[in-house]
Amino acid sequence: MRSFALASREYKAQDTIVEISTSRKTVFIGEGYCTIIAGPCAIEGKEDYLTIARILEASGAHILRGGVFKPRTSPYSFKGLGSEGVKIITEVREITGLPVITEIMDVRDLDLLYENVDILQIGSRNMQNFTLLEEMGKLDKPVMLKRGLSATIEEWLLAAEYILSGGNEKVILCERGIRTFEPYTRNTVDIGAVALLKHLSHLPIIVDPSHATGRWQMVIPVARAAIAAGADGIMVEVHQNPDMALSDGKQSLTPDNFNKMFDQIVQLAVLDGKIKP
Amino acid sequence: MRSFALASREYKAQDTIVEISTSRKTVFIGEGYCTIIAGPCAIEGKEDYLTIARILEASGAHILRGGVFKPRTSPYSFKGLGSEGVKIITEVREITGLPVITEIMDVRDLDLLYENVDILQIGSRNMQNFTLLEEMGKLDKPVMLKRGLSATIEEWLLAAEYILSGGNEKVILCERGIRTFEPYTRNTVDIGAVALLKHLSHLPIIVDPSHATGRWQMVIPVARAAIAAGADGIMVEVHQNPDMALSDGKQSLTPDNFNKMFDQIVQLAVLDGKIKP
Amino acid sequence: MRSFALASREYKAQDTIVEISTSRKTVFIGEGYCTIIAGPCAIEGKEDYLTIARILEASGAHILRGGVFKPRTSPYSFKGLGSEGVKIITEVREITGLPVITEIMDVRDLDLLYENVDILQIGSRNMQNFTLLEEMGKLDKPVMLKRGLSATIEEWLLAAEYILSGGNEKVILCERGIRTFEPYTRNTVDIGAVALLKHLSHLPIIVDPSHATGRWQMVIPVARAAIAAGADGIMVEVHQNPDMALSDGKQSLTPDNFNKMFDQIVQLAVLDGKIKP
Amino acid sequence: MRSFALASREYKAQDTIVEISTSRKTVFIGEGYCTIIAGPCAIEGKEDYLTIARILEASGAHILRGGVFKPRTSPYSFKGLGSEGVKIITEVREITGLPVITEIMDVRDLDLLYENVDILQIGSRNMQNFTLLEEMGKLDKPVMLKRGLSATIEEWLLAAEYILSGGNEKVILCERGIRTFEPYTRNTVDIGAVALLKHLSHLPIIVDPSHATGRWQMVIPVARAAIAAGADGIMVEVHQNPDMALSDGKQSLTPDNFNKMFDQIVQLAVLDGKIKP
Repeated sequence: MRSFALASREYKAQDTIVEISTSRKTVFIGEGYCTIIAGPCAIEGKEDYLTIARILEASGAHILRGGVFKPRTSPYSFKGLGSEGVKIITEVREITGLPVITEIMDVRDLDLLYENVDILQIGSRNMQNFTLLEEMGKLDKPVMLKRGLSATIEEWLLAAEYILSGGNEKVILCERGIRTFEPYTRNTVDIGAVALLKHLSHLPIIVDPSHATGRWQMVIPVARAAIAAGADGIMVEVHQNPDMALSDGKQSLTPDNFNKMFDQIVQLAVLDGKIKP
Repeated sequence: MRSFALASREYKAQDTIVEISTSRKTVFIGEGYCTIIAGPCAIEGKEDYLTIARILEASGAHILRGGVFKPRTSPYSFKGLGSEGVKIITEVREITGLPVITEIMDVRDLDLLYENVDILQIGSRNMQNFTLLEEMGKLDKPVMLKRGLSATIEEWLLAAEYILSGGNEKVILCERGIRTFEPYTRNTVDIGAVALLKHLSHLPIIVDPSHATGRWQMVIPVARAAIAAGADGIMVEVHQNPDMALSDGKQSLTPDNFNKMFDQIVQLAVLDGKIKP
Repeated sequence: MRSFALASREYKAQDTIVEISTSRKTVFIGEGYCTIIAGPCAIEGKEDYLTIARILEASGAHILRGGVFKPRTSPYSFKGLGSEGVKIITEVREITGLPVITEIMDVRDLDLLYENVDILQIGSRNMQNFTLLEEMGKLDKPVMLKRGLSATIEEWLLAAEYILSGGNEKVILCERGIRTFEPYTRNTVDIGAVALLKHLSHLPIIVDPSHATGRWQMVIPVARAAIAAGADGIMVEVHQNPDMALSDGKQSLTPDNFNKMFDQIVQLAVLDGKIKP
Repeated sequence: MRSFALASREYKAQDTIVEISTSRKTVFIGEGYCTIIAGPCAIEGKEDYLTIARILEASGAHILRGGVFKPRTSPYSFKGLGSEGVKIITEVREITGLPVITEIMDVRDLDLLYENVDILQIGSRNMQNFTLLEEMGKLDKPVMLKRGLSATIEEWLLAAEYILSGGNEKVILCERGIRTFEPYTRNTVDIGAVALLKHLSHLPIIVDPSHATGRWQMVIPVARAAIAAGADGIMVEVHQNPDMALSDGKQSLTPDNFNKMFDQIVQLAVLDGKIKP
């Protein structure tokens, strides 16, 4: 018997499709869709964020990402713009009509973020922050749950179970690489996990090739692999000028490379019969 | 150059010694001491906890452990007695005079725990819960920081840096095993990390052989190894009746085995010149 | 500077294409080709092997695999038919005209295998069996070098360097999963390594999704992912009756599933522009 | 039921004690002994090797180590003196009367090494070189079997089973660290494995803290930890002038530090009741 219940295919055979709506757009995440989430790692200022958002909108991206509360390994690193960043994200959401996703690290930021963003992201370091997960379970808002750096698939689904058992069914899984002995890449994308999760669970699964590889040159091939393995979408970092990014520049795509990836991903999804041409 | 500053030997050559006092006892953790922290994994009721506390006090244990807010992989597992458990821990602390340590998972429990326990423990799943670490940095209370399951030594010291840079110098590190491919043991104790930390940092280092091995038969040899490698103490799980424990029974020592371990640890610490006979 | 020289793109910018010929067929492995290697894990008898070989030939497989000297974790497991198996492989090669690949474990089997097979495979357990690698370097025969279970990409390319520096340029790399903490799957396919190797090296790269996942249900999605990430081909286990296989039945495809995979792989390779329709 | 049979405690409750004799000395490895194996990583010349051998003999070392066939990750590194080195090892063995251990990588070196050394070492890269293990099983010579870099305890004991089931009962296990994500140390010593092996198996267990840590500063504390955890001895690298060593200088002890370690190890072994004062 599975240790996870509500997250399992046995409990619910039909794929969960999460609907995300703003005043102007409706986006779906789940089987039958191929959803592209894109944006800079961290929001660094309004003008820059609006510029990249408009580029991404024109390129066909479905959802905007942008960190405002950034978990950083060192206390001395740039930690994001905080509530100032939330204002920017809100304005850009208003202007573009695109749904937005950002990370929540602290239950005390919940009210602010609940009002202003469309998907709350639980980062990998907080995958087993159970008090945060319990709060997510009380919401009627989509939650993207990133896999912990050394979380097994079972532990990950049990973390999802925390949210589901609280009553929130809008859980999206996100594979972002696991920690292994390999020093060449930042993390090791577990592509088999994507395939396996489609058997074990009804929840949508997104892959983040930017954090998983840490090198922009690998982002496109790994994004392609993710879709070919059955993922329901991709979350990538895009920056107008990756060399100047305050965080994660090395793994950010330029807008041109994003367009290249986007076209290839769509062709693959059509070939799979995942989406219609 | 080190990425961590305040945690480094370069910043502070002298070993940090953390003092913990109740109305009746004063205990130290750091170089020159060999501190034994013991108790059940979770507090299951007052009578039981008082019984084991008295046994441990008689055996010479320096600090009592006992979980009240328990992080559990599954939402369906026993999660501790919560605030009811804090009452018990407070009463038993009063009766025995022993300092107590318990885990804090949620900033909203801070006031309650600050008033009633002597050391706040940050569990391995929360080692990079930066909002919790920042709160710890504002306190004048000892904090035991467990290593994350797949945290590098550098990431661990940077987590300590979060607390130190907030102004709280009373940080105690706790090695509790890392996650590897080996399925026989629950985790792999990184004994080399203990030796290395004595070079890199001035902070005290404690080893938890119970969680690290997951098997009581291995607890004594690994505890001995920890002291021989230079650890400043040991934290172990002890239960009157391990077979009946609500959590972690398999890794709990009986009081008899605890006594056996205690004697051996003290002999080793004397041999090292760590403590006087 | 790279620690590997002859294996690097800096040394040779142009992709290495390995040609394999029998009296009736010529097959290529490398950029611009999508080569499918298939067969049972171990050869269990002539009749069975010929049957599956004919099925695979009809399905379009390019190269036959079949173990005769099997490395087994336990000395008590079935270790292959040995020289009896080489006879079978030779006859089936003759009948079908398909090139064959089999593993070499012992330098003392070299003469026998050199005469009778088209590609010599170095298994993951022998990736750093340097005396075996040195012998491979002296040959004018293609060698498929599987990645060691915990080999870094650099160590793997340095193992290839042993063969290349001996004078044999016909080296084919094979990613077959690495060992991580995840217990659900047998190994973790390092899909990022495939993408990275295309940048670092001119050598062909094949992926083995059967050993990498250990579950036949995952073989097709992972094979698809491999091609989408840029792999030059796939090596899979196929068995007429997986439930009766003497080894690795759980990860073997049925002929029907092999056909399904084959079609999808070819479509993907065409979409990539890797091969022409 | 265990997958390993002859290596298990169930098969043989009594500890295996391996006896090693030269014309002048007899040494034992196993429970009740604390055996110190020391020497340079690689033999670089006769004069140097004799000098360090005499120093080690005077210090009380029981067995001399010295590599002549060196497995090296890169084909361009120093690979040892080969048969020239065997001559040196033989002469120094003659002069000092100390038993010697060296690594065998190739079955074709077996006759030469069998005649001239007292213990044959199987290195970690060859732990699953089954043809080599099978040859070891046919000998009446002690074999030290190092744990593979990512070998589970079960796989390691099954490798021992290859030798035991061939008829050679003189197998000595050697823990030398496993590969994990931690970049600070070369490998992670699995101290719990030492404790566990004493339960699971009757075979002697030695720890190699030099290769396991890769830093000489950590060698003494980890050696101490090994003995405290129950290991039957230690194998360390010692070099007159570590900075000038052709390989592994960073992890080599000076003769002075070796003496310091030796004294501490003996005291610990006496305290344990492992050996008599």
